[in-house]
Amino acid sequence: MNVFVIGANGQIGRQFVEKLHNEGKHHVTAMVRKEEQLDDFKSKGYNAVLGDLEGSVADLEKAIDGMDVIVFAAGSGGSTGADKTLLIDLDGAAKSIEAAQANGNIKHFVMVSALKAEDRSAWPDSMKPYYVAKHHADRLLEQSGLTYTIVRPGALTDDAGTGKVNTQFEGSGEIPREDVASFLVHVLHNHANAQNKAIDLIKGDTPIEETL
Amino acid sequence: MNVFVIGANGQIGRQFVEKLHNEGKHHVTAMVRKEEQLDDFKSKGYNAVLGDLEGSVADLEKAIDGMDVIVFAAGSGGSTGADKTLLIDLDGAAKSIEAAQANGNIKHFVMVSALKAEDRSAWPDSMKPYYVAKHHADRLLEQSGLTYTIVRPGALTDDAGTGKVNTQFEGSGEIPREDVASFLVHVLHNHANAQNKAIDLIKGDTPIEETL
Repeated sequence: MNVFVIGANGQIGRQFVEKLHNEGKHHVTAMVRKEEQLDDFKSKGYNAVLGDLEGSVADLEKAIDGMDVIVFAAGSGGSTGADKTLLIDLDGAAKSIEAAQANGNIKHFVMVSALKAEDRSAWPDSMKPYYVAKHHADRLLEQSGLTYTIVRPGALTDDAGTGKVNTQFEGSGEIPREDVASFLVHVLHNHANAQNKAIDLIKGDTPIEETL
Repeated sequence: MNVFVIGANGQIGRQFVEKLHNEGKHHVTAMVRKEEQLDDFKSKGYNAVLGDLEGSVADLEKAIDGMDVIVFAAGSGGSTGADKTLLIDLDGAAKSIEAAQANGNIKHFVMVSALKAEDRSAWPDSMKPYYVAKHHADRLLEQSGLTYTIVRPGALTDDAGTGKVNTQFEGSGEIPREDVASFLVHVLHNHANAQNKAIDLIKGDTPIEETL
């Protein structure tokens, strides 16, 4: 499968690209925004292309030509304002979904979302604009007609991955970014069991390969 | 008809409520956010209720109980940041649409949008976050299953209304807020000709009553 990673230079995106590439079962292409990111990815032996979520749907369509799977791991990040949240987390996702719809041959669209994105009552005040963007990005994907998986991790940490998670729980929790990346790889390998589902994810005791 | 105006204290909303009330053909209820706005509206003889677009869908459902028409004229305004654009212009609209869907008896949902909201290539850089919010609010309404009209005025001015507009044009233009308010009244009177349409609106030479 040809896997296209949007937001490949993000903290989850980088680990996901590395894991998928090293595993060698899929052909992964990293979409990055800057020339120096492109050089960095290529120097590691990864396939990479330049692409901009603030560009046009038509340009995204060209970028995903020939791809089978789209993984959307982009996020404007905590250091930018709500303007970038609107442009990247919401409309960048919307444009990626539209490009995948126009492509017509995308078999799986995997979205990295956020725990409780579906439940407005759970959003802390300070994070509400971010959750609004993720909420509506998820809804657009669910209603797109594309085969999708939405992964909703809890609070992200930089701890080393444990290879173990919890996908069946009430409430909230943390999860290392590395484990989110590993779980995304697992989703690709278990497409049939993950399709058209939204999966909550925090750290836990279940080996990732035993989920789904 | 019982007409419920969300964003009634906005610059278009106030003029719309006044026109509709004075005309006397419909029963209009203004939703406002603050107690002093409520007092102000009531002192003018208008029917008004407190409501908050940052509240729950359930509270909006209660507020619109018994209504036939929803007019969404709310906007976070130019003086707030993109965080409020996400919360009001996008998610406030989304919640209003969800409340109308849950109600089941809303005959017409009228959205005040913005010229070119449907066309990403036309958005000026400085206004992009605002247009992203309006774009997705419009799409949610179009896909809601509700009978809708989306009104997309050009650049809003405080000039006195002329009673004349242009709904068939290329490019852009200005329009007095008062004429937008008058056009919204006209939309309500011509429900059959306005339903499930998006209508562009700038100032022009056609009397409003001759449009639609």
